[in-house]
Amino acid sequence: MLVKKFPPILKKLKRGPQVVVAKDLGAIVAYTGVGKESIVVDAGTGSGFLAIFLANICKKVVSYEIRKDFYELALENVKESGLKNIEIKNKDIFEGIDEKNVDLITLDLPNSEKVLKHAKEALKENGYVVGILPNIEQLKAFYEELKNLGFKEIFAIETFHREIMVRKEGTRPVNKEVVHTSYLCFGRK
Amino acid sequence: MLVKKFPPILKKLKRGPQVVVAKDLGAIVAYTGVGKESIVVDAGTGSGFLAIFLANICKKVVSYEIRKDFYELALENVKESGLKNIEIKNKDIFEGIDEKNVDLITLDLPNSEKVLKHAKEALKENGYVVGILPNIEQLKAFYEELKNLGFKEIFAIETFHREIMVRKEGTRPVNKEVVHTSYLCFGRK
Amino acid sequence: MLVKKFPPILKKLKRGPQVVVAKDLGAIVAYTGVGKESIVVDAGTGSGFLAIFLANICKKVVSYEIRKDFYELALENVKESGLKNIEIKNKDIFEGIDEKNVDLITLDLPNSEKVLKHAKEALKENGYVVGILPNIEQLKAFYEELKNLGFKEIFAIETFHREIMVRKEGTRPVNKEVVHTSYLCFGRK
Amino acid sequence: MLVKKFPPILKKLKRGPQVVVAKDLGAIVAYTGVGKESIVVDAGTGSGFLAIFLANICKKVVSYEIRKDFYELALENVKESGLKNIEIKNKDIFEGIDEKNVDLITLDLPNSEKVLKHAKEALKENGYVVGILPNIEQLKAFYEELKNLGFKEIFAIETFHREIMVRKEGTRPVNKEVVHTSYLCFGRK
Repeated sequence: MLVKKFPPILKKLKRGPQVVVAKDLGAIVAYTGVGKESIVVDAGTGSGFLAIFLANICKKVVSYEIRKDFYELALENVKESGLKNIEIKNKDIFEGIDEKNVDLITLDLPNSEKVLKHAKEALKENGYVVGILPNIEQLKAFYEELKNLGFKEIFAIETFHREIMVRKEGTRPVNKEVVHTSYLCFGRK
Repeated sequence: MLVKKFPPILKKLKRGPQVVVAKDLGAIVAYTGVGKESIVVDAGTGSGFLAIFLANICKKVVSYEIRKDFYELALENVKESGLKNIEIKNKDIFEGIDEKNVDLITLDLPNSEKVLKHAKEALKENGYVVGILPNIEQLKAFYEELKNLGFKEIFAIETFHREIMVRKEGTRPVNKEVVHTSYLCFGRK
Repeated sequence: MLVKKFPPILKKLKRGPQVVVAKDLGAIVAYTGVGKESIVVDAGTGSGFLAIFLANICKKVVSYEIRKDFYELALENVKESGLKNIEIKNKDIFEGIDEKNVDLITLDLPNSEKVLKHAKEALKENGYVVGILPNIEQLKAFYEELKNLGFKEIFAIETFHREIMVRKEGTRPVNKEVVHTSYLCFGRK
Repeated sequence: MLVKKFPPILKKLKRGPQVVVAKDLGAIVAYTGVGKESIVVDAGTGSGFLAIFLANICKKVVSYEIRKDFYELALENVKESGLKNIEIKNKDIFEGIDEKNVDLITLDLPNSEKVLKHAKEALKENGYVVGILPNIEQLKAFYEELKNLGFKEIFAIETFHREIMVRKEGTRPVNKEVVHTSYLCFGRK
């Protein structure tokens, strides 16, 4: 199944809490257009997969994780990745975001809509926030709060990838895939 | 429809020949893991969307386009993008790839399987080639040639994105989306 | 696009209000297993497509439509279909269902969860009710009310069909399809 | 996963060889519009799921199965279903179809394109043949032969169903589904 395929930099890392998979990693980059000049804030870190994927592309990633055990795991994964431009903070993002002039904020944690007021302050003009939201109720709460806070170009998507097997016996899609991980909701300051 | 949503750097560009859309742009980055240290070769340039998207992320992109009119259009788009790390060559990639130690080669042109022998020479060890292939017959030819040439970790995918509308009248996916653009076929040297 | 393909009996009918398309017509039959012995109640009739499709399969279909204009259109379509086992009633299903020992009740109208108490009375033991529900909020209300009323084997689905073009120029899915019509929610008495 | 949900008449049957699942059962009925007056020929019988599903809807189903073990299994399943309008023949359909004036022929067996010349003879004018084809190469062979034999309204589809979970913890699609079983290819005499 495609959810098991990760880019080289993530392949050897330890997976603790649920990680963001390739189909969603790609969508975040594709719609926000972050690149090598971008400053990113991320929360919660979890296993650090999204933070490390983005740090490989962007200038700097700061990731917030309140749980000590995830924080430790993420530190280990960052070390393993060899990347030097990630900072993991063992801190509660609901209390505020220290960074300013941020290009992208990715939020993959429960009640993430409550972080949006901090996100708006931390983002630079035209910067993006992305919510990674397993349930439709979370998507709605996130979407509504983006609207309340005056974010623009708000939209939500879901992504599917399907593997195609090319074999002597015949060409066809694989039988089973993961067909839902999370909705992604984008807003722009 | 989501195929009309592009990252900021592509939004204002002119679209001549068929462009690679966000769902596929994202997948290329997500499975190959290219980043700010990566050297990319791309062909055919077309409108330059893939080249410009990747140049925003990577260190350097060289793109081959044999058609003079597309070459001119792409030059204009590169200029509009403001990026300085893209080189467009008005050259036939079927005659060879000048670059060496390349991290990623993206091929979006008919008979692209015939470029794979050049691609293998140009790639660094563990570098990726990606074919963007509208038809299943092209996918098969590309896949087979990757196998013949000894590429590893060969796999093919298709991607779908669906927009979800969150509105007072109710939350639901949009009615129509583009459900096929191209198959993507990956191989690693 | 596949939403424009209908079975022969529906092909020549007039389409007034939004009709149930083939992908959903098929799913209703496939999961409920209605057949030539089944008695069906349907509301709102709309253009009569679902009623006529089911009448071609089942023993008897009774369909409720409160709007006079839709009722007239449906009568015309039933006549055109040549089927004799459909009765269209210009009546409000929210006030009750006259029929008893029904095998399947299909509900394609706003606030359809409010019909479920009548549906439960009208259904025979093990009979099915199916809601055709454009929005997730409607799906939730319908699902919850099925639970409240003690229906069993409750589940909800969404369906996609994609056309594959087999052509000399190459085999591939069509580019655009309708990717959302309605959620279907099933419950069994 | 939705592939495990079957209509009541199939729920208790034994599954030997790969069976046609609900998403495809429904599509066959929806696009061909078979009903209680229809005569169907089916091959190979396999476990008899498609034959029994169609017999519950149609007037008569005759199903061909060359393998003795599958034939025995299907006989047992037909008996269990209680349906009287199915005939299972332990016969090779590649040698010819005994029936005439058939409304629908369903073909779920390797090299089924070689049955199409017999199918054309057996079908009544405007009758449908449907191929159930796991691989794209089979789909192409089937499609081409339909064209060669002068069938009309030829088209091919693939179907997906996704279950939506409505729960207190949140509403969302299930994580895993079967995303490929077979392509369905339709032709009309």
